[in-house]
Amino acid sequence: MSSSPYPARQLLLLSNSTLHPGGYLEYAQGYIKDFLGRSAVKKVLFVPFALRDHQGYTDKVKAALGPWGFQVEGLHDFADKCQAVNSAQAIFIGGGNTFQLLKGLYDFQVLEAIRSRVLDHGIPYMGSSAGTNVSTKSIHTTNDMPIVFPPSFEALNLVPFNINPHYLDTDPNSTHKGETREERIRQYQQVPGVPPVVALREGSLLEVTGDHAILKGQLEALLFRGDAEPRSYPTGTDFGFLFQELKAQ
Amino acid sequence: MSSSPYPARQLLLLSNSTLHPGGYLEYAQGYIKDFLGRSAVKKVLFVPFALRDHQGYTDKVKAALGPWGFQVEGLHDFADKCQAVNSAQAIFIGGGNTFQLLKGLYDFQVLEAIRSRVLDHGIPYMGSSAGTNVSTKSIHTTNDMPIVFPPSFEALNLVPFNINPHYLDTDPNSTHKGETREERIRQYQQVPGVPPVVALREGSLLEVTGDHAILKGQLEALLFRGDAEPRSYPTGTDFGFLFQELKAQ
Ligand SMILES: [Ca+2]
Ligand SMILES: [Ca+2]
Repeated sequence: MSSSPYPARQLLLLSNSTLHPGGYLEYAQGYIKDFLGRSAVKKVLFVPFALRDHQGYTDKVKAALGPWGFQVEGLHDFADKCQAVNSAQAIFIGGGNTFQLLKGLYDFQVLEAIRSRVLDHGIPYMGSSAGTNVSTKSIHTTNDMPIVFPPSFEALNLVPFNINPHYLDTDPNSTHKGETREERIRQYQQVPGVPPVVALREGSLLEVTGDHAILKGQLEALLFRGDAEPRSYPTGTDFGFLFQELKAQ
Repeated sequence: MSSSPYPARQLLLLSNSTLHPGGYLEYAQGYIKDFLGRSAVKKVLFVPFALRDHQGYTDKVKAALGPWGFQVEGLHDFADKCQAVNSAQAIFIGGGNTFQLLKGLYDFQVLEAIRSRVLDHGIPYMGSSAGTNVSTKSIHTTNDMPIVFPPSFEALNLVPFNINPHYLDTDPNSTHKGETREERIRQYQQVPGVPPVVALREGSLLEVTGDHAILKGQLEALLFRGDAEPRSYPTGTDFGFLFQELKAQ
């Protein structure tokens, strides 16, 4: 849309990397091939910071994307990481621990480079799980344990709302007294000034093109906004209305 | 023990506030009465920062502890919060969101006052859930969602290790691809320099007296330390060996 501040924006935001009972990224194969193929991507820059074994993680991604025709390079392998980002054809940030991932992005000072490469230059960005959390405004709605302390919870802000990946419905038979996922996100929504949260169940994804954000996968997504009951939206919904709303604020 | 740096230390660290199917704090009534009664406590200073409704939360605690013979005052009610801590007979920090709680302790600058009152002056400290998380070295092993950003994850350090409250065993039938609790704590143990983690199942608690830390409740607790398999310890175990180990480092 011509009204978009980021008409070139192209994001594939996966709730999760693996969907029972398939292998790594297998369930999303069609989406990924379409998404990267559309921009004639041959080589993907992979960001492995969410796990500690950067090379092992990069090898795993190579084994998955290689047979689909994509070369993979690990960002950890480059001495000049900003330069690597600035010349990337596409960026994929994988899951693991969101705090460790975001701290890595801050430690290597690549947040601005990634943001500019994706929003201004329009290279495709793919994230899964923690890689989806860091693509949003902030990591306030990660499910991960805070095993390291990043300098901020503010993230890449490729979209101006938050996402909760791996959304899990409340088990009505549970006697466990920890908060349910719904309670956690509603507590977040009580904090003044926070953006809405799109909760993606496993197997769901958002495909963002400019100011459109289409829900894909089999399951409905939930939108949490302020004190309102979370509202359910079917596959095919364009969450682009959030871009309009958040721009207007 | 004369070798303890904190011979006066008295802590009652509950995994959770409510145990199915009982009411608020009901399952721990005997432990709480004994613990506070031993120091002839008449009045408890309650810290309600883990939830947003400070007065409502304090009223709930009053309704629970009042009938057992304890007066309750909410820390939010005092203009001079350090003074309130310094004159408290006993302190209770309740559960809710650990990040919100710790941020509140930093915002009101009461961490040092609480630490000194408990460790140096020996007044009884009771924590449940998030209130147990903040009593330990840090909140790195909270289960909560990071809905606000505290200036640090370092906490009261009343004990030099971490606790994971509400510990939940892995459901072997789950197809959900988010990390299990065990995986999360093991990821934390891979971070260099972190202390061991005592995982307390619901209904479990640690009663700390000087350099002794006795496991109470019905269930075994798990100790996570480095790369080792988590080790299970029965009720009655004295985790005081952790004080010795961590002092020696
Ligand atoms: Ca994760
Ligand atoms: Ca909690």
